Amino acid sequence: MDFLFLFLKDFVIQLQSPTLGFLIGGMIIAALGSELVIPEAICTLIIFMLLTKIGLTGGIAIRNSNLLDMVLPMIFAIIVGVIIVFIARYTLAKLPKVKTVDAIATGGLFGAVSGSTMAAALTLLETQKIGYEAWAAALYPFMDIPALVTAIVVANIYLNKKKRGTASDATMQESYSKQPVAAGDYPSTRQEYRSQQQDTKDHRVKIWPIIQESLRGPALSAMLLGLALGILTKPESVYESFYNPLFRGLLSILMLVMGMEAWSRLGELRKVAQWYVAYSVVAPFVHGLIAFGLGMIAHYVTGFSLGGVVILAVIAASSSDISGPPTLRAGIPSANPSAYIGASTAIGTPVAIGLCIPFFIGLAQAIGGR
Amino acid sequence: MDFLFLFLKDFVIQLQSPTLGFLIGGMIIAALGSELVIPEAICTLIIFMLLTKIGLTGGIAIRNSNLLDMVLPMIFAIIVGVIIVFIARYTLAKLPKVKTVDAIATGGLFGAVSGSTMAAALTLLETQKIGYEAWAAALYPFMDIPALVTAIVVANIYLNKKKRGTASDATMQESYSKQPVAAGDYPSTRQEYRSQQQDTKDHRVKIWPIIQESLRGPALSAMLLGLALGILTKPESVYESFYNPLFRGLLSILMLVMGMEAWSRLGELRKVAQWYVAYSVVAPFVHGLIAFGLGMIAHYVTGFSLGGVVILAVIAASSSDISGPPTLRAGIPSANPSAYIGASTAIGTPVAIGLCIPFFIGLAQAIGGR
Amino acid sequence: MDFLFLFLKDFVIQLQSPTLGFLIGGMIIAALGSELVIPEAICTLIIFMLLTKIGLTGGIAIRNSNLLDMVLPMIFAIIVGVIIVFIARYTLAKLPKVKTVDAIATGGLFGAVSGSTMAAALTLLETQKIGYEAWAAALYPFMDIPALVTAIVVANIYLNKKKRGTASDATMQESYSKQPVAAGDYPSTRQEYRSQQQDTKDHRVKIWPIIQESLRGPALSAMLLGLALGILTKPESVYESFYNPLFRGLLSILMLVMGMEAWSRLGELRKVAQWYVAYSVVAPFVHGLIAFGLGMIAHYVTGFSLGGVVILAVIAASSSDISGPPTLRAGIPSANPSAYIGASTAIGTPVAIGLCIPFFIGLAQAIGGR
Repeated sequence: MDFLFLFLKDFVIQLQSPTLGFLIGGMIIAALGSELVIPEAICTLIIFMLLTKIGLTGGIAIRNSNLLDMVLPMIFAIIVGVIIVFIARYTLAKLPKVKTVDAIATGGLFGAVSGSTMAAALTLLETQKIGYEAWAAALYPFMDIPALVTAIVVANIYLNKKKRGTASDATMQESYSKQPVAAGDYPSTRQEYRSQQQDTKDHRVKIWPIIQESLRGPALSAMLLGLALGILTKPESVYESFYNPLFRGLLSILMLVMGMEAWSRLGELRKVAQWYVAYSVVAPFVHGLIAFGLGMIAHYVTGFSLGGVVILAVIAASSSDISGPPTLRAGIPSANPSAYIGASTAIGTPVAIGLCIPFFIGLAQAIGGR
Repeated sequence: MDFLFLFLKDFVIQLQSPTLGFLIGGMIIAALGSELVIPEAICTLIIFMLLTKIGLTGGIAIRNSNLLDMVLPMIFAIIVGVIIVFIARYTLAKLPKVKTVDAIATGGLFGAVSGSTMAAALTLLETQKIGYEAWAAALYPFMDIPALVTAIVVANIYLNKKKRGTASDATMQESYSKQPVAAGDYPSTRQEYRSQQQDTKDHRVKIWPIIQESLRGPALSAMLLGLALGILTKPESVYESFYNPLFRGLLSILMLVMGMEAWSRLGELRKVAQWYVAYSVVAPFVHGLIAFGLGMIAHYVTGFSLGGVVILAVIAASSSDISGPPTLRAGIPSANPSAYIGASTAIGTPVAIGLCIPFFIGLAQAIGGR
Repeated sequence: MDFLFLFLKDFVIQLQSPTLGFLIGGMIIAALGSELVIPEAICTLIIFMLLTKIGLTGGIAIRNSNLLDMVLPMIFAIIVGVIIVFIARYTLAKLPKVKTVDAIATGGLFGAVSGSTMAAALTLLETQKIGYEAWAAALYPFMDIPALVTAIVVANIYLNKKKRGTASDATMQESYSKQPVAAGDYPSTRQEYRSQQQDTKDHRVKIWPIIQESLRGPALSAMLLGLALGILTKPESVYESFYNPLFRGLLSILMLVMGMEAWSRLGELRKVAQWYVAYSVVAPFVHGLIAFGLGMIAHYVTGFSLGGVVILAVIAASSSDISGPPTLRAGIPSANPSAYIGASTAIGTPVAIGLCIPFFIGLAQAIGGR
């Protein structure tokens, strides 16, 4: 009762925050057919600056942190990343008209992390003056990479089993696997990696190239760069004069873009099974609650802050928008991008930002007794 | 005498303002053949940020405003927008070697509003510490849309009359109307709308699609988005940390681009009748003075501030640079873009920013007795 | 001993500065194969903003300066620009497997100035609280232009002599000169200028077009625009709210890009003689020391500040990255861009920023007795 009241009050406040306002605003102006466009180059810069800032914050914090405190949340992040893929494998994949590889890829994308969603959560935590460990953002890769690796490995094991079972299926499968590559939006600049993988596909999936692929993505490498610079150099002057003050404003532009993007991707969902819609609404809450539960264990065991628990829950609830899709395209070429990108961008991300962030903040506040 | 002195003093001060300095600087470096280029993506972002900021300012202000105060200036804005088109129809169109449709389109563009010019005026008013209603910027669409709608309606009525009069002219007219589409710079992404209009051209012009077209333009939709977010959400944190502090600096870059653009468009004016040059110098003052006069009525009747009167005059003096041209291209395809875009960008805009803004500020200060 | 200690201490501090941190970070993430990309449009904007800011700073300072103080450093800047080319002509060109035109072009590029390197030096001087004349940055064109003019003139004199000597060589030479144009990265938008020059190549090299070409380059025209606006207008409002506070942050992004660029250009150096590597490491120090020595004369004669001496040394140590290459491409079409751009971007610039700036600051501090 008290919790519900706090949650609803918090939710209304969140709706008025610029972060959410710009997200919803973007959806509305896209729905009204606005010709407003934020150029690609600007989005690239914004993502670079947001993730570098998050990395710098973490790096500066880590200098003065007890790294042992990070161990438990880190392990939980890995566990959540892996579990999310298996949830998709054994729920979404069982639903009618859903292809198993598409379901596994969707699980991988929902397990992977969205830097922008995390940035939105950090901003709202600060607005609400809820403390959190600055290194909490550094949990990102510990959930992101295991999820992508697990999805690709599980998909390939499934495909190999299926192949051995029905050898006659192979030609049809092959011809289908070409389709999404031609129809999709993500350029396949990773020819070498893919062909290298093609060779080993029949035997075993190599894990190291997937990890490398993830670490090299623009979002994660910006964050790791910021982290390294925060730990090893003294970036306070640019941090205070540039990355930190511009953070919220740049985030507002990115939220607008994500809102517009979500609206324009809605159409793609019509091409795939309706179950993706239901899954994309429910999954962020389920994933977030699992992470929230594990985070609470860390809260009681090692004193992990409630703000940190919210961050862990939000990165579990988020689905990757920048680096995830191309990695999955390369790793599971036979999965249909319309299914996983449509589900994630059009529904998963707005749900994570607009509903899950306020929900988990409300949950933390109710537990914290504020 | 006193007024002239105040005006001249003010004019010299304006010339030293960064807004005007960058505009003139842009013209000079373009004239000297500089290879400096501000990328298109940056200009798009700047326009988005300026108009969003103007919208947010207005939206935040409207929350605490008596909306009844807006009614009279709003009505005057609509009247001025319509009058400007008829002025062009009955003066410019009568001049030798000027085609009637080109004159009407020019009137439409001069009646429509330039967000950048308005931004320059707001900055100079603040520098001069002249107060104005923050919602005054929201008068923009109330002049912009009526002007474009009137121009397109008047042009089509004229073309229909002419068609009925001289049916043999039709083929020639048609072949001419193709030319500007091929030669112009504005991509015609509005095929549907145009063909939809083509069907009804012989009978009546549909007004609603023109209004929609205007509202969807990037400048106006950014301003309306900002307005809505300012009214409905609490954007103060991003407003104070991002949109407001960066406003003047971004404006300085845009002014530079507009100066370079003005210089590079000068050549196009040589292709059309000389009268466009004379018109583009005189019209901003005439339009501005009409709006200034109506604004003074609102000043005495409802207490509309003198700063607000200046804004009304400046948006009347300005001519649209972003959303106006494509709307006119779609609505009056037989008009020659070299005529109306050349006149507006190469002469109208520099005159409005460089001469009209200081002139109307000086006028307001002289009247205000400062 | 004391000097060495101060220098080493300073060097370690510099390595932790964000400027250097981002440069080295850029090299490392490029080496690790990161897919992080800063869009071209952003780099163009950053260079515009940095150079405009440097110009504005200089312009505002010049208003209150005794311009006579500038004369001696200005003459020394010109002398250093010319000397650097002759050093390359009589050392690098004599080395085995080094083509004389390539050596002269390399000398021209090392004599020309990098705005980004200068920006890094200004930032580090401010961090170290070492005073300098704000007009010192205005020495830039006085070294940049003479170096490029000298290189092009010397190269053409050499080519003409060679041509007269061995007329049979001409065809081979001609066919070679085509190659770099096709292979290079710099678009040759200066066809007119080049062909104009081609005509006179056999007789005399026209100097005025080379000077114009340099002044019209994007970096130099942004700086000169800032300088003019700083002297003639009152840009303090945009300077304080925009260009100055964003300077360090934008520089950090540019340093990252230069680090990534340096790494990606390393490969090109393998195509040319190994001597370029040795030259690119040693030359920045030699050029900087010559300038430092001349600067010290100005220090004792006219009271030129030690910070100013460092700036003079750093612009001598730097090599042009933006405007220099296309000017040389146009002026010495037979030189191989892989040689001079590879040497400068991959080694010269990182050495100048990472080693020479701390070295000359350390030198100045040791001399200044701090």
